[in-house]
Amino acid sequence: MTPRPSFKIPKIPEMTIRRLSVYTRCLLQLEEDGVKTVSSEELAERFNLNSAQVRKDLAYFGEFGVRGIGYYVSGLKAELQRILGLDREWQVALVGFGNLGSALFNYKGFAHQGFRISVIFDDDPQKAGRTVDGVPILPLRELAQEAKGRNLQIGIVAVPPAAAQAVADRLVAAGIKAILNFAPTRLKVPKDVRLQNVDLSIELETLSFYLAQVSR
Amino acid sequence: MTPRPSFKIPKIPEMTIRRLSVYTRCLLQLEEDGVKTVSSEELAERFNLNSAQVRKDLAYFGEFGVRGIGYYVSGLKAELQRILGLDREWQVALVGFGNLGSALFNYKGFAHQGFRISVIFDDDPQKAGRTVDGVPILPLRELAQEAKGRNLQIGIVAVPPAAAQAVADRLVAAGIKAILNFAPTRLKVPKDVRLQNVDLSIELETLSFYLAQVSR
Repeated sequence: MTPRPSFKIPKIPEMTIRRLSVYTRCLLQLEEDGVKTVSSEELAERFNLNSAQVRKDLAYFGEFGVRGIGYYVSGLKAELQRILGLDREWQVALVGFGNLGSALFNYKGFAHQGFRISVIFDDDPQKAGRTVDGVPILPLRELAQEAKGRNLQIGIVAVPPAAAQAVADRLVAAGIKAILNFAPTRLKVPKDVRLQNVDLSIELETLSFYLAQVSR
Repeated sequence: MTPRPSFKIPKIPEMTIRRLSVYTRCLLQLEEDGVKTVSSEELAERFNLNSAQVRKDLAYFGEFGVRGIGYYVSGLKAELQRILGLDREWQVALVGFGNLGSALFNYKGFAHQGFRISVIFDDDPQKAGRTVDGVPILPLRELAQEAKGRNLQIGIVAVPPAAAQAVADRLVAAGIKAILNFAPTRLKVPKDVRLQNVDLSIELETLSFYLAQVSR
């Protein structure tokens, strides 16, 4: 296993990054099942992936395969976790504690992967000032101060569309460089801020495409 | 504009389908702004897309561009909506009415695109028997009967991971051919059922990848 130094990494397609997440889950599963080594073909077969795609995606980051053996499951998993930044804990601010915010707060898997929602912001006087599972809910005006004190790195926007840009502006002003936006609206952020939009309609539209194909 | 007959459509990459959804949103925006025609370069410039990718994606479905003019905004939008199955209404069953289910029910955009959550299933006796915004919440055992009566085509799984496979099995048994799964677990469905998984952790991992790159 000879990972290339990360400062030499070329521009990686976003889909490759997303697939690395999927591969990491597959390797975790194999590790749980006691599997020590796996070939790209076995990985593809078992998890319904494309073996050439697996090799191409991994090749962006180094030579992980060993001739005649394949990949060492635990080693590759650890390497992918490091590449994905999952070898550390990220402090996450959740903005908006309505139904979606609550669902995200309770979502299994975020904490597992090292994403720690350490503070929630919501201006609703019924909510601000309370704590949930030990996590404080604060009014949004305290964001800048908390961002420094808590070393917040990621902001999740779970407010209604009309409020989303103002929230994004505050996150940016507080020095947060990564934003995950669930509001179905287009946000503007500076170039050095990474914005990831989750558009739940796109998932449904993918389904309706296939349904429409079948029903024609 | 000479769309190919849809029965000749070859296997389309899922990412192409997802991008068609994005293009449709962009065209809707242009239409709102009163723009009549647009080139792939203008579309790419304005919405931060890749113009070669736009042309390649559209080429799966026909010749939509007109030399010297580009695309007719309204015409292309209508064509993409037809391809995506957004020219009709789909009856959606939502299973699970906890925080995530409630958030999805209230999510702006589903109804806009023709996805109508016409019934909710939840076995919680506090919920089953009630209605929300005129939509009934029913116990899961009534799924098979309702699926027929309401012509349900899409099922959304918004239950805890441990309950998700049993729910998927019931949806499949009820004849539903498209499932959108929000439970962070791997579901098994027959080959003729289209399963779309939404893994919210992947979005966060994409962000942490970029943060990790910057912080190295």
